[in-house]
Parts: sequence; structure tokens; C-alpha cells
Amino acid sequence: MATSEFARLPGFRDFPPEDFALRAHIQDAWGRVARRYGFHQYDGPPLESLDLYVEKSGEEIVDQLYSFVDKGEREVALRPEMTPSLARILAARSRGMSKPIRWFSIPQLFRYERQQRGRLREHFQWNVDVVGEEGVAADAEVLAVAIDGLRELGLGAEDFAARVSDRRLLSSLLRAVGVAEERLGGAFSVIDKVERLPPETAAELFEREVGLDATGVETVLGLLDAVDLDALFERWGEDERVAPELERFREYLATLDAMGLGAYVQLDLRIVRGLAYYTGIVFELFDRQGELRAICGGGRYDRLLELVGGEPLPAVGFGMGDVVLGELLAERALVPDYEASLDYFLVPVTAAERSMALGLAHDLRDRGHSVSYALREQGVGRQMKSAAREGARTVLVLGPDELARDRVVARDMTTGEEREIALAELS
Amino acid sequence: MATSEFARLPGFRDFPPEDFALRAHIQDAWGRVARRYGFHQYDGPPLESLDLYVEKSGEEIVDQLYSFVDKGEREVALRPEMTPSLARILAARSRGMSKPIRWFSIPQLFRYERQQRGRLREHFQWNVDVVGEEGVAADAEVLAVAIDGLRELGLGAEDFAARVSDRRLLSSLLRAVGVAEERLGGAFSVIDKVERLPPETAAELFEREVGLDATGVETVLGLLDAVDLDALFERWGEDERVAPELERFREYLATLDAMGLGAYVQLDLRIVRGLAYYTGIVFELFDRQGELRAICGGGRYDRLLELVGGEPLPAVGFGMGDVVLGELLAERALVPDYEASLDYFLVPVTAAERSMALGLAHDLRDRGHSVSYALREQGVGRQMKSAAREGARTVLVLGPDELARDRVVARDMTTGEEREIALAELS
Repeated sequence: MATSEFARLPGFRDFPPEDFALRAHIQDAWGRVARRYGFHQYDGPPLESLDLYVEKSGEEIVDQLYSFVDKGEREVALRPEMTPSLARILAARSRGMSKPIRWFSIPQLFRYERQQRGRLREHFQWNVDVVGEEGVAADAEVLAVAIDGLRELGLGAEDFAARVSDRRLLSSLLRAVGVAEERLGGAFSVIDKVERLPPETAAELFEREVGLDATGVETVLGLLDAVDLDALFERWGEDERVAPELERFREYLATLDAMGLGAYVQLDLRIVRGLAYYTGIVFELFDRQGELRAICGGGRYDRLLELVGGEPLPAVGFGMGDVVLGELLAERALVPDYEASLDYFLVPVTAAERSMALGLAHDLRDRGHSVSYALREQGVGRQMKSAAREGARTVLVLGPDELARDRVVARDMTTGEEREIALAELS
Repeated sequence: MATSEFARLPGFRDFPPEDFALRAHIQDAWGRVARRYGFHQYDGPPLESLDLYVEKSGEEIVDQLYSFVDKGEREVALRPEMTPSLARILAARSRGMSKPIRWFSIPQLFRYERQQRGRLREHFQWNVDVVGEEGVAADAEVLAVAIDGLRELGLGAEDFAARVSDRRLLSSLLRAVGVAEERLGGAFSVIDKVERLPPETAAELFEREVGLDATGVETVLGLLDAVDLDALFERWGEDERVAPELERFREYLATLDAMGLGAYVQLDLRIVRGLAYYTGIVFELFDRQGELRAICGGGRYDRLLELVGGEPLPAVGFGMGDVVLGELLAERALVPDYEASLDYFLVPVTAAERSMALGLAHDLRDRGHSVSYALREQGVGRQMKSAAREGARTVLVLGPDELARDRVVARDMTTGEEREIALAELS
């Protein structure tokens, strides 16, 4: 196809207008929803010091960084996620700010994944964070923004659901089952993979990596199948370590119910999220048919700001990428058709009307209308074809006879109807 | 100030909400104006093969590239300008497209300038291009977009002007003065610097680098002072090499006059533009007080698409950055105040109304209103303070007595007026 000797880098996208339109459709919806929730938009640089990511985000992300040494001998990376930049920005200025802080951003993010064929190395990601509030109302608020972001694009409870968990609740349950404190990290990492493993392999890993006996394994696997908070209350409600965690999670779900979003939310203790910095409630949004990767992931990260040298502040947020979401919208036929459109196309009949057309076009544009015309002298027929191709709603034909009476012919391109109007009418 | 141990990279900007608001203010104006002219938005990747820039943009830009070798051993660069990406994208697809192509973009661009202290390494740049039309109407259209972009932000003819020239006209004049064909490039490069040189140095350079004698130098310096096309016609109108170029330039200026933009445009043959790929009319926009660097630069580049392997297509476009423009807006007091604003802030009087508040907030947001509330239980006084801080226009107080009658108290935060309204009224 491409005849150019210069190729796009692998894993990057071009956005010609028809693709840019979908990108804008998604990002505009994200922005509208975030502003409805009272969030303020921010951004940071696409390039940051490598330091900011190393040790903060777990080894998994560090291996995949699009990192390099710059001409000033600095180790730098194209940002792979936004949260470290957010934490850096807030670390320097949060002390003077009223809490909670409601901020959102739509950065382009980058990863360098060597082995994956056909996988992108960049995407745009909606980041929404509440900083400075530790209660579950903040967790619920953030998940509600994510859900409404998808609803705004036409997706409903039949299309997607949020699977929610709480690392604190899961930890308390694992302790109650008998997992040793120092084995909790290992347990999380097995649980993170459990959906993709055959049951025997999972059981084996729980025995070997977490030190559980057969009964313990059975109990843990039972927990991971739990979808009902009441059942957990029945079994663990009397355990003094577990009960407060269950209570908190119940309040979280009740908050989402009060917002009318209960149908979108499903308890699922298998959701732990890979990133090391999560500390509490975590969630992922999936398409109901389970064919795509997660649409969105997020959770509470109460220690990150302190880690990058800022004020200790609780925080909760999510990231939602545009690639999987774009696939889901396409599957559900929710991608709007791209159509060029214009308010007016101006057609001077002869060269003599050209100057008049230029002046009129500029006046109409000054009043906020979109206007185009041929950039060279052409016959009326060719100009009318251009008008149709550019999606003009109205064509204004400037002929010598009509102009002599300060009038033009306006053609409605939908109905084909033509009428003469006074120049003064155009506003 | 900053207490974080992690610093932003030198030359990059953070955009906390108050700064993001100015960025959005500028970019929204750019987008509105481009769409009024019938342009379609596109984008490319922020990272491209180094090849795309080397030899295409002149040595000047290559030295300043933010370039590196990636993990796949590719020589790559953060894009320093958009035109090469545009040319690459069009090279692969322009053959099937109707001409002229009207595209615009607002990329973030990057340069690595070693020596300059305090100079930025990134900026956002509005790129507007007409591809596939060689006539001066396209040149005029593109300059009109640039001028209207500034007018849309509140700047007028007293604030800025476009200095316009034509490399073809200048070449024909230089040839007529006696500059040898192989010295034209050298002459352009002296002319590009002439404003920043003392007259004696300029004269010396014209003698040494361009091979002019004293009379020739005087004639060229006279040309560079010309601001009046009629005077050029009088002196050179009979020269058969120069006359057609003067005619073309007159048509260009007449087109801008017909648009009502004559007051913004000034002939200035000293404008040649550094980049090697310009081939015809070139222009720069400056603040009238001459205190700032150029706000915008552009021109015709008829050979670039072919150079990157595409269809031979004439093209004209410009780039306008956000940094100098931001300085000019600040000087002219045209930066809008950043104020948080919300349609509603909801105040549940006791914990019992909290659930009701969550449901009402979600309903209002679903109807497109911006809504916030405290994310924890607080007294009414503290909640009212948050409402004021978040810029709420209306506070809805949810008290037990009013709710029992399906009513709430609405407080207008501008007038302080309070009235009871039915829940059903809120839409």
C-alpha cells in the first residue's frame, strides 16, 4: 500500500481525520464526564526521569519502559503511566491545596514491549484521581466516573461490568485462612494469575508458593469464587480481623447502589491488579462477553505520594485506555460515522464574483460558521461537486445578476431546494 | 519550593489545572478557527524514524533533534516539527484523496537545544496545511487561518502583523540585480540574518558570500527595506523575469484584502524562513512591538511530499507555537482567569440524607450538569465552604424536613438567595 520510503515506527498509530474523529469522540466523552464530576484537567511531560518509575511501579513495568539515555546523559523514559507524574506534581504543591483534590488527565502513554507482535507501543489513557480522602466514598466516586465514561459512549450494563475487590479485605481473609504474613505477597501474585491457570496448577502454586495445605487451598479457591458479600459475612462476619473489612466493603457497594450503579458492579476477589502501589479497593472494567482485555483498571494507592517525597496523602484513581475501548465500541457498532460537514460552500459564478465571495466567507467565519470554497476558478458544476464532497449543508451561489441586487441563491443540499436571499440575511 | 526528590526534566512543562486551562483556551480557539475554514484534524506519532528528518529539514534542525537509539536499535527522534509526518502520512494515501486537502493538527513538538538556558524543549504547535493546490488563493487561505487564530484569542491589528515575502520573487529580484544562480542560497542565508546584523557587517557579507559589488549591495539592501509593492513594480515591472512574480504577489495581497485582512499584512523581503524545504510565499507573524520572537511561521513547500516518496503535490502551511503566543496574551491581559465552576454542590444535612444526595447527584450528572459534594460526613458550614471554593453556582441543601415533602433548599451562590424547590424541578 504505502509507497513512501519512510515508514511509521512499529507499534505507533497515525490518526488521519477519520481515525482522529474516533479518538476525539472518546476523549471528548471522557472530558465531559470528568467535568460533570467536578474534576479539573491537568497534564505532565511525556518524558520523565527513569528514576520516577524504577522501584515505584514494580519490576513488571520497568522491563517494558520506552527508556533511553538523552544527549545530556540523563536516563529518561517516555511515560508508561500517569500516576507517578501526578504524584511528582502534587508532591511539590499539594500542601497548599484544599482536599480532596479531583484531577483528571488524558495523556498518551508508551511501552516498549519487545516480543509482542501487533501490540501497540502507545495509547491514550484517561486518568482520574481523587487525592486526599481515605473513605470509600472517594473509591465509589472514582469507579462511578469510570462507569459513566463508558455509559456516555453508549455502553450499558449488558456490555460491561466492574469487578471490584479490596486488597485489605483479601489480606484479612488470607490471614484468617492461615496464610503467614510474609507469604501474603506470594499469595497475591498467584491470585493475580489464577484465572489463566488450570485449577490443578493453581492448587499446586498455593501449596508451594503460599504454604497452604489441601484444606487451605480449598478454602482460598472458594473465596476466589465468591460473588456474594452476604455469604462472606455469614462465614467470616464473626472474625474480628475480617469483619471491619467486610463492613467497609459493604459501605462501598452501598454507595454505588445509591448512585444507581449497582447493576454494573460485581465482587470478585481475584482482582488484585499487578502494580505494587495499590493498597485498598481495586477494580477492573471488562466487557461482559469476556473477549477483550480489561477496559480499565484502578484502585487505592495511599502510599505513593509519600514515596515520591510528598505529603502523605491517600489517593484513589484509575486509567482507561483507548485501544480496547475502541475495539469494544466497534463490536457494538457505537463508532459514529465520519462525515465531513460544513455550514456553507460558496460558489462564485464567474471570476468577477470571487472577491465578493472571499469577503462573504470571511464574514460568515467571523460569525462562527464553517465555510469553504474552491481555491481556484472552476465552473459551477465542479464547485457544486466539491460542495457535496465537503458535506456543505447550504451552497451560496454568487451570480452577477443576484449580486447586483445584493442577493445570492441559497441551495439547501439536503432537499435540493433553492431560494434567493438578501446578503443581509446571512448571519 | 519543591520537596519532591524527583524533578521534572529541564525544558519541560507541567500543566496543573490553572496552566492547563490556558493551554486549552489557546488550543480550543485554534481548533474552532481551523474547523470554520473547513479543515480536518489529524495527528501522527510523537516519535518517528530519524531518517524522516535528516536531509529533509536542513542541518539546523538536525542538530537540535531530541533523538536517540531505541531498544530495537532504531535511530528515532521525538518529532521536532509536524510537516515531515504529514508528508509521510499523505505520501501513502494522497493518491485516492480529493484535492485540495485541508488538514490541521495540534502536536506537541520537541527539540534538544544544549546551550540555551531557560528555553523550552517542548511546545504545542498548531499546524495548518493546504495540500494539492498551487495557486495563491491557497497561500492566502492559510495565512488567513493564522491571522484569525490570533483574532479569535482577542488580538487585533494593533497587536500583531504578518510579514510576507515570496522566495520566487526574491530570487527573481536577486538574479535581476546580478546575483549568480549558485550564489542564491548564500544570499538567502545572509538575508535570513540581516535584521540581526549591523549594516556594515551585512554589506560585508553580501560582498564576500554573495559576490556583490558596492552598487549591488546597495540595491539589495534597498530591496530589503521595501514595504511597498507599487514601488517594486515601478522599478522592476518591465523586467520579464521579475514582472510575473510581482503579479503573483499582487494577486496574493489582493486576495487577503478581499478577505478584509489587508491591515494585518506587510510585504517584507527579509522574511525567508530558515527551513530548506520552502519554495514560494513565506510569512511570519510578529507582535507589533517587536519584543517577542515570531509567533508563527509558514509558507509554501511544493517539493516535500515527493521528497518523502509520495505523489508530487504542492503544499502550503504554517506552524504556530503556544509559548510565544502565551507570552503575548499575558502582556495584553488576554489570559482568562482560571476559576473552578460547578452547576451544583449537594449538601446532605445529616448522614440520613447522604444516600439521597448520591442518587440526586448521579441523576443531575446524567442530565449533563456538573455536580460535586463532600466525600465524607461534614457539618453544613464546612460543606458550604467547599461549595464556595469549588465555584458552585447553586447549592442544594438536602434536609430531612424538606425531603419528606420531596423538596430541597436551593441557594443561589451569587445572590445568596434561598428558595425551596421540588425535586422534580431539577433537570
